[in-house]
Amino acid sequence: MRLTETAGEKAPRIGVLASGPRGTLADIEGVTVGHCTLDEGAVQTGVTVIRPHPGDPFIAKVPAAASVINGFGKSIGLVQVEELGVLETPIALTNTFGVAAVAQAQIRAAIRANPQIGREWSTVNPLVFECNDGYLNDIQALAVSEQHYNDACDAASVDVASGSVGAGRGMSCFDLKGGIGNASRVIDVAGRSYTVGALVLANFGRLPMLTIDGAPLGRVLAGRAAKSVAAGSAAVATSANSAIQATASKPEQGSIIMIVATDAPLDARQLKRLSLRAAAGLARTGSVYGHGSGDIALAFSTAYTVPHESDFVALPPVLADARLDPLFRACADSVEQAIVDALWHATSVTGRDGHRRLSLRDTAPDLAQLLKQSS
Amino acid sequence: MRLTETAGEKAPRIGVLASGPRGTLADIEGVTVGHCTLDEGAVQTGVTVIRPHPGDPFIAKVPAAASVINGFGKSIGLVQVEELGVLETPIALTNTFGVAAVAQAQIRAAIRANPQIGREWSTVNPLVFECNDGYLNDIQALAVSEQHYNDACDAASVDVASGSVGAGRGMSCFDLKGGIGNASRVIDVAGRSYTVGALVLANFGRLPMLTIDGAPLGRVLAGRAAKSVAAGSAAVATSANSAIQATASKPEQGSIIMIVATDAPLDARQLKRLSLRAAAGLARTGSVYGHGSGDIALAFSTAYTVPHESDFVALPPVLADARLDPLFRACADSVEQAIVDALWHATSVTGRDGHRRLSLRDTAPDLAQLLKQSS
Amino acid sequence: MRLTETAGEKAPRIGVLASGPRGTLADIEGVTVGHCTLDEGAVQTGVTVIRPHPGDPFIAKVPAAASVINGFGKSIGLVQVEELGVLETPIALTNTFGVAAVAQAQIRAAIRANPQIGREWSTVNPLVFECNDGYLNDIQALAVSEQHYNDACDAASVDVASGSVGAGRGMSCFDLKGGIGNASRVIDVAGRSYTVGALVLANFGRLPMLTIDGAPLGRVLAGRAAKSVAAGSAAVATSANSAIQATASKPEQGSIIMIVATDAPLDARQLKRLSLRAAAGLARTGSVYGHGSGDIALAFSTAYTVPHESDFVALPPVLADARLDPLFRACADSVEQAIVDALWHATSVTGRDGHRRLSLRDTAPDLAQLLKQSS
Amino acid sequence: MRLTETAGEKAPRIGVLASGPRGTLADIEGVTVGHCTLDEGAVQTGVTVIRPHPGDPFIAKVPAAASVINGFGKSIGLVQVEELGVLETPIALTNTFGVAAVAQAQIRAAIRANPQIGREWSTVNPLVFECNDGYLNDIQALAVSEQHYNDACDAASVDVASGSVGAGRGMSCFDLKGGIGNASRVIDVAGRSYTVGALVLANFGRLPMLTIDGAPLGRVLAGRAAKSVAAGSAAVATSANSAIQATASKPEQGSIIMIVATDAPLDARQLKRLSLRAAAGLARTGSVYGHGSGDIALAFSTAYTVPHESDFVALPPVLADARLDPLFRACADSVEQAIVDALWHATSVTGRDGHRRLSLRDTAPDLAQLLKQSS
Repeated sequence: MRLTETAGEKAPRIGVLASGPRGTLADIEGVTVGHCTLDEGAVQTGVTVIRPHPGDPFIAKVPAAASVINGFGKSIGLVQVEELGVLETPIALTNTFGVAAVAQAQIRAAIRANPQIGREWSTVNPLVFECNDGYLNDIQALAVSEQHYNDACDAASVDVASGSVGAGRGMSCFDLKGGIGNASRVIDVAGRSYTVGALVLANFGRLPMLTIDGAPLGRVLAGRAAKSVAAGSAAVATSANSAIQATASKPEQGSIIMIVATDAPLDARQLKRLSLRAAAGLARTGSVYGHGSGDIALAFSTAYTVPHESDFVALPPVLADARLDPLFRACADSVEQAIVDALWHATSVTGRDGHRRLSLRDTAPDLAQLLKQSS
Repeated sequence: MRLTETAGEKAPRIGVLASGPRGTLADIEGVTVGHCTLDEGAVQTGVTVIRPHPGDPFIAKVPAAASVINGFGKSIGLVQVEELGVLETPIALTNTFGVAAVAQAQIRAAIRANPQIGREWSTVNPLVFECNDGYLNDIQALAVSEQHYNDACDAASVDVASGSVGAGRGMSCFDLKGGIGNASRVIDVAGRSYTVGALVLANFGRLPMLTIDGAPLGRVLAGRAAKSVAAGSAAVATSANSAIQATASKPEQGSIIMIVATDAPLDARQLKRLSLRAAAGLARTGSVYGHGSGDIALAFSTAYTVPHESDFVALPPVLADARLDPLFRACADSVEQAIVDALWHATSVTGRDGHRRLSLRDTAPDLAQLLKQSS
Repeated sequence: MRLTETAGEKAPRIGVLASGPRGTLADIEGVTVGHCTLDEGAVQTGVTVIRPHPGDPFIAKVPAAASVINGFGKSIGLVQVEELGVLETPIALTNTFGVAAVAQAQIRAAIRANPQIGREWSTVNPLVFECNDGYLNDIQALAVSEQHYNDACDAASVDVASGSVGAGRGMSCFDLKGGIGNASRVIDVAGRSYTVGALVLANFGRLPMLTIDGAPLGRVLAGRAAKSVAAGSAAVATSANSAIQATASKPEQGSIIMIVATDAPLDARQLKRLSLRAAAGLARTGSVYGHGSGDIALAFSTAYTVPHESDFVALPPVLADARLDPLFRACADSVEQAIVDALWHATSVTGRDGHRRLSLRDTAPDLAQLLKQSS
Repeated sequence: MRLTETAGEKAPRIGVLASGPRGTLADIEGVTVGHCTLDEGAVQTGVTVIRPHPGDPFIAKVPAAASVINGFGKSIGLVQVEELGVLETPIALTNTFGVAAVAQAQIRAAIRANPQIGREWSTVNPLVFECNDGYLNDIQALAVSEQHYNDACDAASVDVASGSVGAGRGMSCFDLKGGIGNASRVIDVAGRSYTVGALVLANFGRLPMLTIDGAPLGRVLAGRAAKSVAAGSAAVATSANSAIQATASKPEQGSIIMIVATDAPLDARQLKRLSLRAAAGLARTGSVYGHGSGDIALAFSTAYTVPHESDFVALPPVLADARLDPLFRACADSVEQAIVDALWHATSVTGRDGHRRLSLRDTAPDLAQLLKQSS
């Protein structure tokens, strides 16, 4: 367990690669992220938007590809990304039943920017990913509206918050509070320096599976919870323990969306290879890509864009496939780190029907000590 | 060219297999189809719903699989169908920018029927396919609403209309009026009789490519149109000819959705194989799966259902793969026939900005004679 | 039916696009093809080799991608082509049980050329496709040896034979003699001229399905065969008729391999799109991609190569996806034409156990007249 | 780090699920494994065969599916497994350049057993996986012959050896001696007990990545090696350290084949889902699915077979997808355990050009102590 500073203050550092200056997706030049958070009683949800570059992605499309690791998911937009290898809207994340409203908003925004869409030009491909936040959020309320997407777009900046914000507001992860996580890694390839970043919407896992940098923290916490509940004790974090016990026997219905960005010049085929390495980072946190989990990774490159209208597409020289290993490692490490980041920054949230998810810190006030012991 | 009755009255019959009694998707026992058609000036669009069985498909899920032949499309729902091999809502078709509203409607309908969805149970996977009807329809108006989906559901019956109805209202095909087409074929396999049916939403192709039962009808019509326009003649169907000329140089932005149903007992892997054979029927009409065309086929079986909640799933004995050839042929023939059926039943439509698509019949009042000559 | 010259002399011309000067895969600059034919009693088989450029494809790898239309096939090499988007050996075609010997030969040839392979360098990916020629050929004899591959390589030239040669020696197609077919098409895209060519190893189909340029020639021939056999007549081509009848009830065990080449600058993702359009050309000849048929298309580009060892790969500007439709059409037309070419050039062959496949011409000496009638 | 008995004697136990009685693939009833090991100077290689049941798999085909995690591999047979969802020969593992000989042997064996193959019946689909053992083995010698496959088949039994045997003889893993590894897990699903087993051919990874049950053992060993080499010390395991240093800067050219078996009733689609979970187990050992690694998992079920010839296929009730999570976990744990098992049982091997791979034990005689410290 390699903690970056005072244990308990900073999250453990995954791997040996250097982080970018911000430790977020915004370490990739040009990428910005915005959140719109809904925190109104039973409505605990939101929208997160990733803008791949400052321009209009319909005009300057972004090379991208995705890996569906487990397809229990209701995203929109992947069919066309798979076929054409580009995305042409900002990437949006929200709850499962918010996809339609957000897709609608993306369509309207694209038409506003380009009134030729659906007239002289082809239509636009919305790209919305989702996780099910129905434990905390009254998902049946369909509370996410088009305005929330627009607000998230407007809020996009290089200052990227993690935790119980945006689409992460109502998410659960390992029976704890999940949400948005960020990380980045800098690697040298072929004599140049490139950055790989990950932003995750973490909403998966049962507590006993939780593994932090190789340490079985989840088993320790689950064991403590079981003991606490059995004893009916007024121990630390009893409500967390009860919640953990209450959900222990229920099937996993979670998901994780992993957005990977890089400034390395890769084509769509290579980005697909890169995106799959998110599965390695995810596995190291304890996931086995559960049946009910929509585990999807999308990778994009900011090294060039593809014009909406042209005869030819001029790519910069792309990295040789044989040079991709450092990027693969950076992707896996970034995703693992981003999941830890989500747990570290999430704050406890109470939502519909009094459901409550405690943050990792509220669950384990003695986290620093625990990590020392279990590693 | 094998016409079924009086030339000009009935469409040419594709292939040698027998048709089912209705010649529609409803020849598969239990399947019903409903249309909601919007015909209000510049709004020429609609929704078509296919109900795979009379029950609740969330409770009794339907084995299904899809082939994305060309992925320039904005459907929702395929990721989960690919993973789990079932569909759990009615299948909906609409215009490209109507997908979100229809998906929203499917979610609300599923929650109404099963209030546990998104609470005790997992979420529901909407399944909506689309084509771009923007030539005739003011697609930017986003005119399709949730109510239109509900109306189409309510209208579902075994009497299935073809032509400029439902989602087919605003569609174009080979520069002519396209829309909904139906067909079915009955085959004997392993001593039993099975039916394969197809419903298409046909919105693809340039006129010169149009091939009817092997005959290059499109080249004949395009040639005539060119001559007529060149002569400035007041010939038959001048407006059609002008329209054909006007669009001849524009890139194809169409699509085709092909829904294939069968009562044969097939598992999801086999249904995926079956769905791909739609590509053969499509090719025989002149398509080469153009870049801008979202060509997607989905096949489902009514031979059994998969319960939402159970420990085991008991399938009936499925057909051996080595027995599938008659079904493959029935699929290809049904799809080709359904495309012809769409052209035959479509009526001319005028939509936004005075755009007009003439039906095949209005384009070629001498169709019967033409077919005799060109075949 | 558009015959190119005297009916009966030349095969019908498919579509409206111009052919390249040779009408073979060698119309793509740098591509050569070699055959090694085994014609020894019961051994009627062979090897065909396609060299994508005059150099060493291990050193200068060739961008490529494949579509498995129906995967009842035993090729070797596609896993790596799918992952890396390049091929690194000549493409070899042979019979199903010759794959191993040919792959072995490819490995040895690569090691001879680059002794670092499997030592300092990674291993080499053999790429061998196959069809089952077991009706005419004693496939159990495993007669294809490494030398036959080497001989085919040595024979590679721009003079490409079609018909009962090379890997096509023992193949059957529509119950007639099949084999190797060639075609090419020239198209203008973005102000430049590009060529698309196809070489097929045609070994699929039952006679009644045979469709030549839209005309149901197979039904005519099958009907005549049935009548002839019924009458016990000494009519034209009785042995063909008997053979046709004899196999009519047997399941299809054939296959088709479709190699598509172009000088247009496309990346691997685009080549995969191109390769799929082979399915359209195949369908137009009557195929529905039968269960027992291994229908595989591979497309490669000669516009650039990918070095075995480098930090970056510099591609020329690639065609925009929105400009691909002419290439898609050229691919479909080339494949359809190449299948017709195989039937036209194949000569009748007698093989193991007296099995005999008559050529199309020997089956229908009145072919020219028939084509006029049936079209 | 949970050691099963005396540290240093037994490998760490991965996860909390119970192991089967043998801890090998043979814990799945009916499955047997045979090795043929070639240990002759520069030839350090072999063949491993997995027989899925005691009968003839061509007659009684075995439901199976595969996930290609990274496709830098030269296997044969996956195209047909993907299409048809069955395997019809024993599964064979060997070195990269031995695939052809082994495939040939499988063909001959199938013909011997069923002389109708390639005559009245269709051909047979060989299924051979490979890793590149070229560091220890003179892979250019193409030393694997058909007889070696037959010998491995004959040797198949329920007593399954792990380590430097069979196809594992020349393999390297994390710069240490790799090879064959085994593990199994028993889980309860839906009131019944099922077993999942894994057999791996482990030939991947650089030492610093090695992670054992979450502990970064590789970093410890690599650090020690670096120090030892720097010091020129006559320390323990100097040759290992030198070898580790020598290869540290070379690109990974390894691979891992992961064969997963279960007695749970699953169809091919579900087996594909199961096979992908091997990626989770693999990632936990430190792999990020490196560019040069052919990482392929194949899963099969012994719960039923599919007859070569029949009209229908009767499956037993299959597990509901929502019940698969325990199997997914068992798969990931078995694969991780099997990789550890390979390292634990491998013995040091010297091969071509004096190349030597030390076993984990020879590298770290103080392994038990190290594990205690690093965990």
